Amino acid sequence: MSHNTFGHLFRVTTWGESHGPAIGCVVDGCPPGIHFTQAEIQADLDRRRPGQSRFVTQRREPDEVKILSGVMQDGETLVTTGTPISMLIENVDQRSKDYGEIAERYRPGHADYTYDAKYGVRDYRGGGRSSARETATRVAAGALARKIVPGMVVRGALISMGEKEIDRANWDWDFLHDPENPFFTPDPKSVSEFADYLDGVRKAGSSVGAVIEIVAEGVPAGLGAPLYGKLDQDICANLMSINAVKGVEIGIGFQAARIHGEENADEMRSGNDGYPRFLSNNAGGILGGISTGQPIIARFAVKPTSSILTPRRSIDRKGAEVEVVTKGRHDPCVGIRAVPIGEAMVACAIADHYLRHRGQTGKG
Amino acid sequence: MSHNTFGHLFRVTTWGESHGPAIGCVVDGCPPGIHFTQAEIQADLDRRRPGQSRFVTQRREPDEVKILSGVMQDGETLVTTGTPISMLIENVDQRSKDYGEIAERYRPGHADYTYDAKYGVRDYRGGGRSSARETATRVAAGALARKIVPGMVVRGALISMGEKEIDRANWDWDFLHDPENPFFTPDPKSVSEFADYLDGVRKAGSSVGAVIEIVAEGVPAGLGAPLYGKLDQDICANLMSINAVKGVEIGIGFQAARIHGEENADEMRSGNDGYPRFLSNNAGGILGGISTGQPIIARFAVKPTSSILTPRRSIDRKGAEVEVVTKGRHDPCVGIRAVPIGEAMVACAIADHYLRHRGQTGKG
Amino acid sequence: MSHNTFGHLFRVTTWGESHGPAIGCVVDGCPPGIHFTQAEIQADLDRRRPGQSRFVTQRREPDEVKILSGVMQDGETLVTTGTPISMLIENVDQRSKDYGEIAERYRPGHADYTYDAKYGVRDYRGGGRSSARETATRVAAGALARKIVPGMVVRGALISMGEKEIDRANWDWDFLHDPENPFFTPDPKSVSEFADYLDGVRKAGSSVGAVIEIVAEGVPAGLGAPLYGKLDQDICANLMSINAVKGVEIGIGFQAARIHGEENADEMRSGNDGYPRFLSNNAGGILGGISTGQPIIARFAVKPTSSILTPRRSIDRKGAEVEVVTKGRHDPCVGIRAVPIGEAMVACAIADHYLRHRGQTGKG
Amino acid sequence: MSHNTFGHLFRVTTWGESHGPAIGCVVDGCPPGIHFTQAEIQADLDRRRPGQSRFVTQRREPDEVKILSGVMQDGETLVTTGTPISMLIENVDQRSKDYGEIAERYRPGHADYTYDAKYGVRDYRGGGRSSARETATRVAAGALARKIVPGMVVRGALISMGEKEIDRANWDWDFLHDPENPFFTPDPKSVSEFADYLDGVRKAGSSVGAVIEIVAEGVPAGLGAPLYGKLDQDICANLMSINAVKGVEIGIGFQAARIHGEENADEMRSGNDGYPRFLSNNAGGILGGISTGQPIIARFAVKPTSSILTPRRSIDRKGAEVEVVTKGRHDPCVGIRAVPIGEAMVACAIADHYLRHRGQTGKG
Repeated sequence: MSHNTFGHLFRVTTWGESHGPAIGCVVDGCPPGIHFTQAEIQADLDRRRPGQSRFVTQRREPDEVKILSGVMQDGETLVTTGTPISMLIENVDQRSKDYGEIAERYRPGHADYTYDAKYGVRDYRGGGRSSARETATRVAAGALARKIVPGMVVRGALISMGEKEIDRANWDWDFLHDPENPFFTPDPKSVSEFADYLDGVRKAGSSVGAVIEIVAEGVPAGLGAPLYGKLDQDICANLMSINAVKGVEIGIGFQAARIHGEENADEMRSGNDGYPRFLSNNAGGILGGISTGQPIIARFAVKPTSSILTPRRSIDRKGAEVEVVTKGRHDPCVGIRAVPIGEAMVACAIADHYLRHRGQTGKG
Repeated sequence: MSHNTFGHLFRVTTWGESHGPAIGCVVDGCPPGIHFTQAEIQADLDRRRPGQSRFVTQRREPDEVKILSGVMQDGETLVTTGTPISMLIENVDQRSKDYGEIAERYRPGHADYTYDAKYGVRDYRGGGRSSARETATRVAAGALARKIVPGMVVRGALISMGEKEIDRANWDWDFLHDPENPFFTPDPKSVSEFADYLDGVRKAGSSVGAVIEIVAEGVPAGLGAPLYGKLDQDICANLMSINAVKGVEIGIGFQAARIHGEENADEMRSGNDGYPRFLSNNAGGILGGISTGQPIIARFAVKPTSSILTPRRSIDRKGAEVEVVTKGRHDPCVGIRAVPIGEAMVACAIADHYLRHRGQTGKG
Repeated sequence: MSHNTFGHLFRVTTWGESHGPAIGCVVDGCPPGIHFTQAEIQADLDRRRPGQSRFVTQRREPDEVKILSGVMQDGETLVTTGTPISMLIENVDQRSKDYGEIAERYRPGHADYTYDAKYGVRDYRGGGRSSARETATRVAAGALARKIVPGMVVRGALISMGEKEIDRANWDWDFLHDPENPFFTPDPKSVSEFADYLDGVRKAGSSVGAVIEIVAEGVPAGLGAPLYGKLDQDICANLMSINAVKGVEIGIGFQAARIHGEENADEMRSGNDGYPRFLSNNAGGILGGISTGQPIIARFAVKPTSSILTPRRSIDRKGAEVEVVTKGRHDPCVGIRAVPIGEAMVACAIADHYLRHRGQTGKG
Repeated sequence: MSHNTFGHLFRVTTWGESHGPAIGCVVDGCPPGIHFTQAEIQADLDRRRPGQSRFVTQRREPDEVKILSGVMQDGETLVTTGTPISMLIENVDQRSKDYGEIAERYRPGHADYTYDAKYGVRDYRGGGRSSARETATRVAAGALARKIVPGMVVRGALISMGEKEIDRANWDWDFLHDPENPFFTPDPKSVSEFADYLDGVRKAGSSVGAVIEIVAEGVPAGLGAPLYGKLDQDICANLMSINAVKGVEIGIGFQAARIHGEENADEMRSGNDGYPRFLSNNAGGILGGISTGQPIIARFAVKPTSSILTPRRSIDRKGAEVEVVTKGRHDPCVGIRAVPIGEAMVACAIADHYLRHRGQTGKG
């Protein structure tokens, strides 16, 4: 067991705080012979990187990944050797700052109080271990995970921001790559609405939550296990490990609790090549914890960041009552940059189950 | 890693299928010196037991637990010795039956197809490993878990059934123990509405989903970890491992995605004994993955069972198109009996974190 | 992590004490589609069973295994379904006895004192969790493990007893199955010497240690990992987990520390089918933690049981000085029955690595 | 599970190859509030560092540790925060070299062939992942582990080299720190003998093995578990994970197999403060897998390095027969520098069990 590791056969350990010299991860159990380039890892990191629009934090971090082990050069690409892959990202933009006040006060909605309750000591600089920076290391690991399952494609999109939602009728995966899309929304028509909305939130010194949807296509049937190694369970656990996530669902999720059995269960007809053809995908591609071959669909809710300019009531380490205002460079909607992070966590969960399935059954 | 084990220091391994001789679990890592009685375990099992009202399956199982190891008699009670506690429940009511059709056909919404895709072999009798019977072993383990954290009380309630919801203004924990309450609802006024509704569902040969809320009080601050050992992550994973669960949330959950930062973050004032007094509990008792000392609140969505009398389109093992009707003794709303199961899974997650926290920090 | 589980993908959890109703194990992660019979498991158990000659304990236990889950009948054999296999063995011969003295006194060389130091409570009946009976469950699990790696054969032999050693020139594997061989010795000429020797030990109210050698043939090259998942490391850990084992070695073991590099390193020549032909096997079939394709060779040292009739100085729970004599039915050389146990533990380690290797690399 | 991680609650993941940019480790689960200095870590690393006498490899590596996470400055010392501690050591002396021949030929006694058999790809530069350099990261982790158990002191010594042994009557722990002692021998009189012997070995282009003894004092009674979490089992597994180790024993080890029960079992008398006073320590401080409070004693056998100048018969990747001579800067007795490594691995095993014991029982 470990508090800083996830996965079983495709296993990721992350380390680092916001204001130390670096952050990083070690990916253990990666199959040998996987070809990739540093540029591929970097491309995923760049999607998560701060400072790319006025809607995300202005902290300037190049997030340049260094690969320190576990690979050999093989012509133009790197190839994994089967030994642990250590990746490191330096912290560059650590603005010097007086932390005196933050060190003593518990910001509402943050982990300040609970860290002190647990550890008795706390790295208060920039959120310490709970900094959103840590998620860069997940994205790097996820970029490798995407290579493990042949044919798998994992994509994500922001589907609501605060009380505003996309129109699913407009869903266009290609729009995710549009430079005019600062929100990871799949609905081109939603951009201006989200932009106006978020400008208002930002100017009010507030913040807002979001819901993200992740879709994994090309996942073979058979991954997962009936009870405590359910594929959906591990996807949910991986998503819940992202900071600020307060809920996760698979397929139609909570909606399933409101409907009848005959509406919910996905019917089957004969498909191609002996595989079933499902007539719907309410199950989100997973039945009894095991993948069906349909697209895997997961959604997660991100709370609004608690780092806001609006004064809030709190206490300090000595128990005295204080008022807290969190200045600094914060995302008004941390859910936006959560999209590539969610993709990475889902990719890691599926890659891990792919190897576990291959281990137990010899298939895959 | 294991597909049939959960927990790290308080560790539960379950085994067994619906129609074998027995089901059971092994609880490893239980602290020595915990006193309990077999009657306490049985009392929790009896809450989950089928056949207690017309709203649940009529399978008649006494669900009598046998404790085979890990304890010594100490006067009137048993006391744990620190070695693994093996508990066994015999399968009694295995109605003899012709499984020919079920063995060949994939029931929509069930794991039949995915089992075959994964394993190539499948115990088709009564759902096999995916049978709801397996959850009895979780309840037995949970009864021990409740003993680990001094002062902890874990309770659950059904808060919605299909499109019907309770009125939270009527919440009465005591009503959970009322013999006139076959639904684990905390709202006395909801009983007749739920009864009428579910009678209709049952008579229509259909089924319906539900949402369950679990509340754990008396959990000390400091349990959990910032990232991959978050208390909320492990609670969600434990709940997602229950059959038919499609979504999980903590505190206000998905609602957090719709509101602003100043509404969401729970403010603090000076409390008694140096502990903070929180002015709300949107966080559900967990910040940054670590307990705050407030009640832990989790909710999960249970889909309607797919075992319904309404004919559904499907295929058989050879890919031929068939129609499936699932006869037999099924719960029209499996969410009802999920209440004690959810309690057990939350209790196990917290007990495990209590020991992990004590291991790392020496506190607790 | 777990104190009562070993293995990662082929994973065995054992439970039970000497004087409870039963002992047992749960084997998780077994591949589906493995065919076996109950008689095969029983045959291995019978080799370990007490009471078969005057040289082992006279406790009379049929050690009849019950298989409770994880299998389906398939014609004449059972077939694994991929779900956990629970096996149970009842404790039959629990001679009623007054444990008053043993409950209070610490037997030298036993775990009595350390159990109390750790747990504060102790099942003093028949050694409790440390009873040699527990090893029956390992043998049952090992019987399944033997089925995992195609072509693998794991055999063991006693090579020394106290100061007496076999003559390796006489090694005859077939003699292990000879009913006239109560010692698991591979040297037919050693039987009378061992018999005389052990009769003397027994009559003197003493006991004696032994060294066991385990050989696994048919293990493909490539199992294991360079550092913390070394195949030899896991074999040694599995053997060290057997009660009374005080040392383990691989290949020529401690002898390697005494010789020169050119004597030690096994030279290679071209072999059949592209495989190397090794000119010796000092390495015991493992280089850099990974199997070479040569036979795996491990040895372990079993101490003499501390349950002897000779009076020994000790203390009781209150610290008072006492003299201890251990009456009862004890093996004068517990190393004898350790042979099938050692085989089982080596088979489990290799089966686990076979699945791990297949998971990471897709080979096997 | 992981191939590059050891420990459960005090958990060490290592990464890196001999000829990449760096090697390192991540220590997870370290208790918060542990004070240490970088100089303390460095002091342990310096004991293992190559190039300090003519008897070890002349590779010149400063082995300077960088601590990247998990600590805060607290006055003159660092203090752990409870989050993962990442430590990195740059590879400096990577002599440029033509690896053409080594890349194609399998060195006898090395992991070259098995790496290819397992992974199909191999980092042949300087031993890759199997390089002795990796052990520096263990020593760094061990330096932290030494801080976990209050009062624990872990020391090691070389007790034999090839056929030469120390005289235990001369044992002097202080001599380990003597600058005139290049062998980690505790016997001052052995130095000249070992020096002459090893000069001969080196000049002959050969190498030689060694036996190392590790003693851990100040370990409280109660650490470990009866069966699969035995303290001796985990110590042995940790030691077996060191490259070139072929055997491990606890207490009198293999000698226990040769003697009688009454000689072997350590008798007890009343001691101070209610603790037993043992009259001998054949058990090596562990009974039934649990520490007794006596010094823990473990020994391990290191084979002679297979990197020797003497030509040896082997094959290349294509199966052709070749002759191999390993030039380069190699230790004629790798066992010498194994002393601080063994200490580190034993310290890690005990620290881990200290936390596990505290987690389960609340003691410690």
